[in-house]
Amino acid sequence: MKKLVNDPQHVVTDALVGVEAAYLGRLAVDHEHRVVYRADAPVAGKVALVSGGGSGHEPLHGGFVGPGMLDAACAGEVFTSPTPDQVLAADQHVDAGAGILHIVKNYTGDVMNFDMAVELAEGGSPIATVVTNDDVAVEDSLYTAGRRGIGVTVVVEKIAGAAAEGRRDLSAVADVARRVNDNGRSMGVALTSCTVPAVGRPTFDLAEDELEIGVGIHGEPGRSRGRLGTASEVAEQLVVPITDDLDFTGAPVIAMLSGLGGTPLIELYLMYGEIARILGRRNVTVARTLVGNYITSLEMAGCSLTLVRADDELLDLWDAPVDTPGLRWGA
Amino acid sequence: MKKLVNDPQHVVTDALVGVEAAYLGRLAVDHEHRVVYRADAPVAGKVALVSGGGSGHEPLHGGFVGPGMLDAACAGEVFTSPTPDQVLAADQHVDAGAGILHIVKNYTGDVMNFDMAVELAEGGSPIATVVTNDDVAVEDSLYTAGRRGIGVTVVVEKIAGAAAEGRRDLSAVADVARRVNDNGRSMGVALTSCTVPAVGRPTFDLAEDELEIGVGIHGEPGRSRGRLGTASEVAEQLVVPITDDLDFTGAPVIAMLSGLGGTPLIELYLMYGEIARILGRRNVTVARTLVGNYITSLEMAGCSLTLVRADDELLDLWDAPVDTPGLRWGA
Repeated sequence: MKKLVNDPQHVVTDALVGVEAAYLGRLAVDHEHRVVYRADAPVAGKVALVSGGGSGHEPLHGGFVGPGMLDAACAGEVFTSPTPDQVLAADQHVDAGAGILHIVKNYTGDVMNFDMAVELAEGGSPIATVVTNDDVAVEDSLYTAGRRGIGVTVVVEKIAGAAAEGRRDLSAVADVARRVNDNGRSMGVALTSCTVPAVGRPTFDLAEDELEIGVGIHGEPGRSRGRLGTASEVAEQLVVPITDDLDFTGAPVIAMLSGLGGTPLIELYLMYGEIARILGRRNVTVARTLVGNYITSLEMAGCSLTLVRADDELLDLWDAPVDTPGLRWGA
Repeated sequence: MKKLVNDPQHVVTDALVGVEAAYLGRLAVDHEHRVVYRADAPVAGKVALVSGGGSGHEPLHGGFVGPGMLDAACAGEVFTSPTPDQVLAADQHVDAGAGILHIVKNYTGDVMNFDMAVELAEGGSPIATVVTNDDVAVEDSLYTAGRRGIGVTVVVEKIAGAAAEGRRDLSAVADVARRVNDNGRSMGVALTSCTVPAVGRPTFDLAEDELEIGVGIHGEPGRSRGRLGTASEVAEQLVVPITDDLDFTGAPVIAMLSGLGGTPLIELYLMYGEIARILGRRNVTVARTLVGNYITSLEMAGCSLTLVRADDELLDLWDAPVDTPGLRWGA
C-alpha cells in the first residue's frame, strides 16, 4: 500500500485536520464527532442540509459544505457509515429552526444510522430525509436493498442547496431533492481496485485487461466483468444502461462525469467526448456539464456517469452561486 | 497500460474533442492546431494571455482558459512541447491588438518553440514572454537549463489573467506575472510513475517503499530517492527545501497543494494538514489555499507544493472572479 498517510487507522481524523486548515474561516470541523460544517452556521431562516457517509469519496460530502450547498457533512470511517451520534451532532451545529433535510445515499447502514439520529433528536427542528438511489448497475447489492446511491447525490446537494439558500421551506426543499433523484441515473466502471488504508490490501482484483462494469463506490461488484475495450466502447457501457432505464430525450440534461480518484483529467475529457457523441446520437441534449473528481473511491481508476433530466427550474437552481471546496461558482 | 483511451497515438486530439463538448459556448477548439481558446476571443482592449506545453498536466493549460485567466492554450503531444505553428495559431485566435503575453514553463523545447513563434509572427500585437522556473528540486535538469517551471504557472496564469481582465497594459501584466514567478517556489514528490500512452510502459520504476523526492512533472529524476515515510515526513521533504530557498515569513502566502493525478483528495487534505502545521511552526502565514488537482502528470501518485509570497495587490488579483474549467469563482 503506497499512500500519503500517517497511521492508516487515523486517516479520516487526520484528513479533517487538513480540511480545517485549508478552508479556515469558511468551514469548521467538530473533530470529536467528525463533522464538517459551515463556519457561519446556523444560517438564520434557512433549511439546513446535512449529509454524510463513509469517507473515501472526497470531495463528497465534506467538500460540498458551504453557501449554496450543504450546511454539514459527517465523515464516517473509510467506506463505513457515520454513526447516529455524528449525524445528531451535525444537525445540532447547523439547525437554525427552519427544518433539516438529511440527504442519504441508499446503503443499509447509512439509512439506518440517519434514521436512528432522527429518532434520537429531541427538541430540534423537523427533519425530512431524501434517500438517493440512482445507480442503474444492480437492483439489490452487497450493502443495499434497492439501488445504490451514487453520483446523483452531488446534483441533489447542489440543487437542494440552492433551494434552501433561496429560503424555500423544508417540504419544498425536500420535494426538489426528490425530484432530482427521481430524474437521475448513474453507472460506473472500474479499471483498478482501491485499497482501504486500514485494510492495507486491494478490495478486489482485476486482471490487466479487465474492467468491472457497474462497480459500486466501495468496490462492490457490478453487473459483470468485461475486457477493457476502447474509450468509445466503455462510453457505450455507461450510456446505454442509463438511457435504457429512463428517457432523457426532450428535456435539458445535467451530465456529470466523475473520476473515481485515480483516473487523470485527460482521460475524463477524452471519455466525455465519446459520451457526448453517443448522447447526441440518442437525441439527448446536455445543458450543463461537470467533468472532474466529484464522487470518488479512494485511488480507484475508472469513472462514473450521472445524467439528470432537468427543467428550467432545476437549471436555475443548478446555476445559482455555490461556494464550497468541491463546487464553486458565482452568479 | 490500463487507460480510458481509444488509439494511444491520438489521446490529445481525442481529449480536445471532449473539452469542446464539455465546455460548449465557453471554450472553442482549433483542432488542426490543437488550441483551446475563449469562445468570446478576441476580447476588445484586453492583453491576450497565451500559454501551453506538453499535454498530460490537465487541467493545466487548457483547463485554465476562460474569463479571468488564459485566452488560449496550445496542447502539445503528451509531455512534448507544442510547435511554433501551434503557438502562432493561438496568438492569432486571441489577439485583440492590445498585446500578447506568453506564459512559458522553463523547458528547453517550450522556450525555444514559443520564441520561434514570436520570430514568425508578422503584423500582430507586441508579444512579451514570462518564463516560469519555480521548482527548487534541481538546478539544471533533463529538459532544462535552470530550474523547471511547475506549479507557480497556475498562480501566474490566475493573477496575470486578473490583471489583463482589469485592462492593465502589456508591460504591467508581464510585470505582475514575473513578480509572482519570482516570489514562487515549488517542490514535488512521486510515489508511482506514470505511463505515456504512446509509449505504453511506465516512465520510471519505484520500489514499493520508495518515493522520488523533487520529481519533475514528466517523471524526470528529482533530488534523490528515499524511503516513503509518513505524510508528516513527506510534508517536511516538501516544505523545507521551499522555505530554505526563499523567506516566506512576514507576507501573506498563497499555498497550492496539487495532486499529480493518481492521488485521491483524502490524501491531499491529510497532507495539507501536515504542511499547514509545519508552515505554522516556521511562521509562514497562509492567506489563500488551493488543494486539488491543478498541475498533474497523467496518473502519477504524489503531490507538489507551491508557495507564493504575495502582498495585498496580488491577493486582490487572486481573489478576482475567474471562470475556467479548472479554477472558477465569483466576485
